[in-house]
Amino acid sequence: MSEESSGNTRKVEVVPSPALFPVYFDNTDCTVVVIDIFRATSAICAAFESGIDSLIPVATLEEAIEYKQKGFLVGAERNAEIVEGFDFGNSPQGFKGGRFKGKTVVLTTTNGTRAIEMAKPAYKVVVGAFTNLTAVCKYIEKEDKDVLLLCAGWKDRFNLEDTLFAGAVAQKISKNLRFTNLSDSSIAAINMYNSAKEDTYEFLGESSHRKRLSRLNMEEDIIYCLTLDQSNIVPVLEGDVIVSNNK
Amino acid sequence: MSEESSGNTRKVEVVPSPALFPVYFDNTDCTVVVIDIFRATSAICAAFESGIDSLIPVATLEEAIEYKQKGFLVGAERNAEIVEGFDFGNSPQGFKGGRFKGKTVVLTTTNGTRAIEMAKPAYKVVVGAFTNLTAVCKYIEKEDKDVLLLCAGWKDRFNLEDTLFAGAVAQKISKNLRFTNLSDSSIAAINMYNSAKEDTYEFLGESSHRKRLSRLNMEEDIIYCLTLDQSNIVPVLEGDVIVSNNK
Repeated sequence: MSEESSGNTRKVEVVPSPALFPVYFDNTDCTVVVIDIFRATSAICAAFESGIDSLIPVATLEEAIEYKQKGFLVGAERNAEIVEGFDFGNSPQGFKGGRFKGKTVVLTTTNGTRAIEMAKPAYKVVVGAFTNLTAVCKYIEKEDKDVLLLCAGWKDRFNLEDTLFAGAVAQKISKNLRFTNLSDSSIAAINMYNSAKEDTYEFLGESSHRKRLSRLNMEEDIIYCLTLDQSNIVPVLEGDVIVSNNK
Repeated sequence: MSEESSGNTRKVEVVPSPALFPVYFDNTDCTVVVIDIFRATSAICAAFESGIDSLIPVATLEEAIEYKQKGFLVGAERNAEIVEGFDFGNSPQGFKGGRFKGKTVVLTTTNGTRAIEMAKPAYKVVVGAFTNLTAVCKYIEKEDKDVLLLCAGWKDRFNLEDTLFAGAVAQKISKNLRFTNLSDSSIAAINMYNSAKEDTYEFLGESSHRKRLSRLNMEEDIIYCLTLDQSNIVPVLEGDVIVSNNK
């Protein structure tokens, strides 16, 4: 691509870890997709699909406890498990059934909600997962801004599943000529997605977090989180609250 | 791999950016390979191959100027070009001919020397490039410590060529059963190397830094930096000075 044409296209950059967000976030006029496949962002998409009205992401357990005392339904996960005393964790399966319909829920997780917090100054912050991949890509194209694909990772380390999803988004939107100004991190993520897409479950077999979840008997969650396009909703941050784009 | 067997193997972790080094560097008893393919670590390997006695890496231009005033041969690169007033930059071609033989030279570069500085507290810090790939892998196996493959990147961003080399090292040493405890970042880098290794030049065609260097007419350097095993020397940090492991 010539220098000239790149001026007319949107940047698409994968941020491999929240610790690198400040390095890539040099322009707030962008769409940030927050990605925490296992399992925060998959769970948030599931919550909206099950009919919640809105979701308040909070970074700390202290804030979560305050909301619980006010009578909210509050979820809290640390190190892949539900924190004792809370209503749910970050399992997408936890949102099955009707009890969340129309409710505002609160959620804090190890990595995902912190990434949402960091991205707040951006023009738009949305929640992405394999379960709403196509909807997220359509949303990005419609907004027509530079794109940061923010991988929540695991305690600031790179992880495979978040980068894999970032690669899926980058690959899909880069078919649109507006989104062809790819960073090195996007090229690498697309390359990885292309080599993994036939069987993402198998590809992630050796990943650290899949092993962590497998030990906790969360195979059903893993399969759910890797199943494409189960929802047409894009959860979008508005102020401090996440709402549905279809609202 | 079972939890038990992973206790008997060495960790192999790719650090995708110097900004993530503190996250991965949780144990100083390790071998750190500093990687800045275009071009600092390729140039350092070329300098030793051409017969220098030792190399002093410095992080700032101020320090470089001090050494120059003391009469040292001093190289300085910023934004891919030689800084005016210095003897050389970070082109490996700059070390051709006999003028460096037996000398101690000083070098500061945009990304590479800063990464060396960060890694200093480690048990061993070595300089890796495609040009000494096999020698570096043998060194790592002999030391038999956990391994951090530190990509210098570009101003704290992920880059393709450094990660590609990290993948080459991880792939090669993981054939040794002692080095099979791979991080997610290592799995991703190996995957990328496997898909690129038949033609790394072509694979890097769209990379940001190859484009940057191509604009500066540095194609010859690029090809040099991607050519495997031109040197059997592993440059090793001893105190503040880099020396040859064959010394």
